Amino acid sequence: MTISDCSERELIARIQARLPPPPDWLLVGIGDDAAVVEPERHRAEVLTVDALVEGVHFDRAFVPPDAIGHRALAVNLSDLAAMGAAPRLALLSLALPPGLLIADFDGLVAGIAALAERTRVHVVGGNLTRSTGPLMIDISLTGTVKPRQVLKRSGARPGDTLYVSGTIGAAAVGLMMLRNSTTHPKRSTTGDTKDTEEQSRSGNVLTSVSPVVERCIQRYLRPEPRVRLGLMLARNRAASACMDLSDGLSDAVYQIAAASGVGARIDAGALPIEPCAREVFAARGADPVTEAITGGDDYELLVAVRPRTRGRLAAAIRHGGVPLTRIGVCTEDRAVVLSRDGGDTPLPGGGYSHFRSAEASSLDHARDDPARVEGSRAT
Amino acid sequence: MTISDCSERELIARIQARLPPPPDWLLVGIGDDAAVVEPERHRAEVLTVDALVEGVHFDRAFVPPDAIGHRALAVNLSDLAAMGAAPRLALLSLALPPGLLIADFDGLVAGIAALAERTRVHVVGGNLTRSTGPLMIDISLTGTVKPRQVLKRSGARPGDTLYVSGTIGAAAVGLMMLRNSTTHPKRSTTGDTKDTEEQSRSGNVLTSVSPVVERCIQRYLRPEPRVRLGLMLARNRAASACMDLSDGLSDAVYQIAAASGVGARIDAGALPIEPCAREVFAARGADPVTEAITGGDDYELLVAVRPRTRGRLAAAIRHGGVPLTRIGVCTEDRAVVLSRDGGDTPLPGGGYSHFRSAEASSLDHARDDPARVEGSRAT
Repeated sequence: MTISDCSERELIARIQARLPPPPDWLLVGIGDDAAVVEPERHRAEVLTVDALVEGVHFDRAFVPPDAIGHRALAVNLSDLAAMGAAPRLALLSLALPPGLLIADFDGLVAGIAALAERTRVHVVGGNLTRSTGPLMIDISLTGTVKPRQVLKRSGARPGDTLYVSGTIGAAAVGLMMLRNSTTHPKRSTTGDTKDTEEQSRSGNVLTSVSPVVERCIQRYLRPEPRVRLGLMLARNRAASACMDLSDGLSDAVYQIAAASGVGARIDAGALPIEPCAREVFAARGADPVTEAITGGDDYELLVAVRPRTRGRLAAAIRHGGVPLTRIGVCTEDRAVVLSRDGGDTPLPGGGYSHFRSAEASSLDHARDDPARVEGSRAT
Repeated sequence: MTISDCSERELIARIQARLPPPPDWLLVGIGDDAAVVEPERHRAEVLTVDALVEGVHFDRAFVPPDAIGHRALAVNLSDLAAMGAAPRLALLSLALPPGLLIADFDGLVAGIAALAERTRVHVVGGNLTRSTGPLMIDISLTGTVKPRQVLKRSGARPGDTLYVSGTIGAAAVGLMMLRNSTTHPKRSTTGDTKDTEEQSRSGNVLTSVSPVVERCIQRYLRPEPRVRLGLMLARNRAASACMDLSDGLSDAVYQIAAASGVGARIDAGALPIEPCAREVFAARGADPVTEAITGGDDYELLVAVRPRTRGRLAAAIRHGGVPLTRIGVCTEDRAVVLSRDGGDTPLPGGGYSHFRSAEASSLDHARDDPARVEGSRAT
C-alpha cells in the first residue's frame, strides 16, 4: 500500500494521530488556511528552515524512515540550539513520491513526532505535495530566546577559549559503514525476527556489527541535537559565540572566526575524536584528525568562551547533558590553524567549493562548504 | 553558466543583493545559525508553508523563472490573506537542480523579491540545497493579526451571505493556453526583440495572443494575492468565515461549509466568471460554470458575511482593492448545492480524490482535493 492509495485527508489524519494535544498558545491549528499562535512575552523569536533531500542528504537504501524523520527535525533543532533558543513549533512540508509506502510515510512521521515530543516542539501546520522525483522533507522551526541571551557567531574575541561538545567523527564513520553495507550486503543468518523485520523495513542489510560500530551508525542515523546545552549556555551567558557543527568542526571554526573577525588555533591533540572513528579512519590509512574535523553530520556545538567568564561554563556543563572539551583558542592573528606536533598548519577544510559538490547550504549560515573528504558525507 | 559554477556563498549573495535593508525588528538576519526577530506586540502570529514542485505545480517549459518565484510567494500570501493577517517575514528553502541556469536562478529570486517588497515581507533566512530531481521552492511565511480579528473557516452560520473577490476561471484558461502553446508552438515572426528575449528566457513560445487571452495567462502566471482585502475584512470584522480559492471556488465552499457545520446554495447566474474564460470554455464545448468553479489557481477569497454586519463590508470593499460579488448563501440544510435554471444540484467538485491525482495539500487546509477537470490544473 502506497500513499497514492490514500486521500490527502487520510495522510493528514495519520500525522495528526501522532501529535500530542495542542498547547494553549495555539489559537488555530491544522485545518485552516494558516496556523495562529500567541507569541511568548518578553522573548525574541528564532526561526530556521532546513531541507533533507533524498539522494543528497540521505539514501533510503540504508536510512530507515524514522531516522529520516528524526534527522530532518534534528538538523533544525541543532540550529536553534546554536542560538540558545528553546524550541517551540514546527511547520512540516513534505514532497512525497507517489510510490512511497504508507508504512514508510508512517515511519517518517513517527521519527519526527517522537523527537518533537521529546524536545517540546508542536507541529502546527504544513504542506503535503507529490514529488516528481526525490522524497523531500522541509521543516521550518521556531523557538524563543531572551533577546540579551542570543548566541551569535560574531561575539568571539582574541583570547577566547574554544570548546566543542560531545565527540566528533562518529557520524562520518557511521555513514561510511552504512554505505559499505549496501555495496557489500551480508544477510543475517541469526534468524532473529526483530532484526530481520528492522532490516526489511529500513532496507538496512547491515548485520552483526560490533557495538562500537553500531554506536557510530546511530550517531549518523539519530543525531542528538544539543538543545539543552544551548539553553544552558544562553541562560548562564557563558558563550561569546556559538555555532553548530552540521558541516563539520573545521567549517564551524572558520565561520566563527570570520564572523567574529578573529583567527583560531586548534590543538590537534585535544580533539575529542570518537575512539571508534579514530580506529576506523586509521585502519583505512586516513588521517583521523583531518577526517574527524572535516566530516559532517556531527550535530555538536562549537562554543567560544571569554577567559573571565569561564566559571559560568561549569553550570552550563552541569545541566547541559553533554561534556565540553577545550580544543583551542581565538587569536588576534586572522589565520585559522591546526597546531600539531609543535607546528601550525592551515586548518584543513577551508577551501572554496562549488554548489554541485556541496551537500546543502543555509542562508542562515551564509557559508562556503569546505572541500569534502570523499566518503565522509552523504552525497 | 549554471548554479554549479557558483559557490553557495555566491548564490546567497545574489539573493541578498535583491533584498531591501533589514527592518529594525530583525535582530539577527542572514549569516547566523538562525534568524532572530522581535515579535509584534499585542498581535498573534500567523504561520503557513507552501511548496511549489516542478512538474507538479509548474512547468518550466512555459512558466518563466520570475513567475515561478512570484507564484511561490503568492500562494503563501494568499493563505495569510485568508486569515486576515499582515505579512511580515519569509524563510526561503530552495532545492535546485545543478543544471539550473544562473539567469533562471536570478529570475526566480527576482520574482520572489519583487512581490515580497510590494507586500512588505522580509526574507530573514532560508536554505539552499541541490535537488537530484525537480526544482522545488518552499516558502514559510509569517504574519500578524489581532487575536480577535482572525478570519477562520469555521464561523459561518445559516443565513450568512457568501461573496467571492475578483473573478474566477481566468487562471485555468491561462494555464490551458500556455500548455497548448508548448504542444503546438508557433514562433514569433514579429522580430520584436523584447518579446523574443522574453520567450527564450522563459521557454514560452506563445506569440501574438489577444490581449484578452494574455490577461488570463497573466492571471495564471502572476496571481495577485488578496492581502489588502484580507486585512480590511479583519479590521472591520466584516467576515464570519474566510478562505482562499487556491483549489477552486467549489473546494472553498465545501471547506467553509464543513468547518462551519452549514450547507450552501451557490447561484450559478451570479458567479463572476472572467468573460474571456467563459468564452474559451464555451468554445471548447465545456460548461463554463463547472470549469470556473472547479478550476484552481484563482487566488481569490471566499467570504461569509452575517446579514446584520453587511454594512461593515462596504468599508472593506472600499479599501480592499478588489470587488466582491455575492454568489450565494449559507443554509441550515447541510447540502452544498448549485442553484441553476430554477433547480438545485450538488455543487460539482465535492468528490474524493487520491493523493496521486491531487496537486498539493496543506496540513493547514486538511482537505480532500475535489476531482479535477482535466486540463484545468497544473499536473
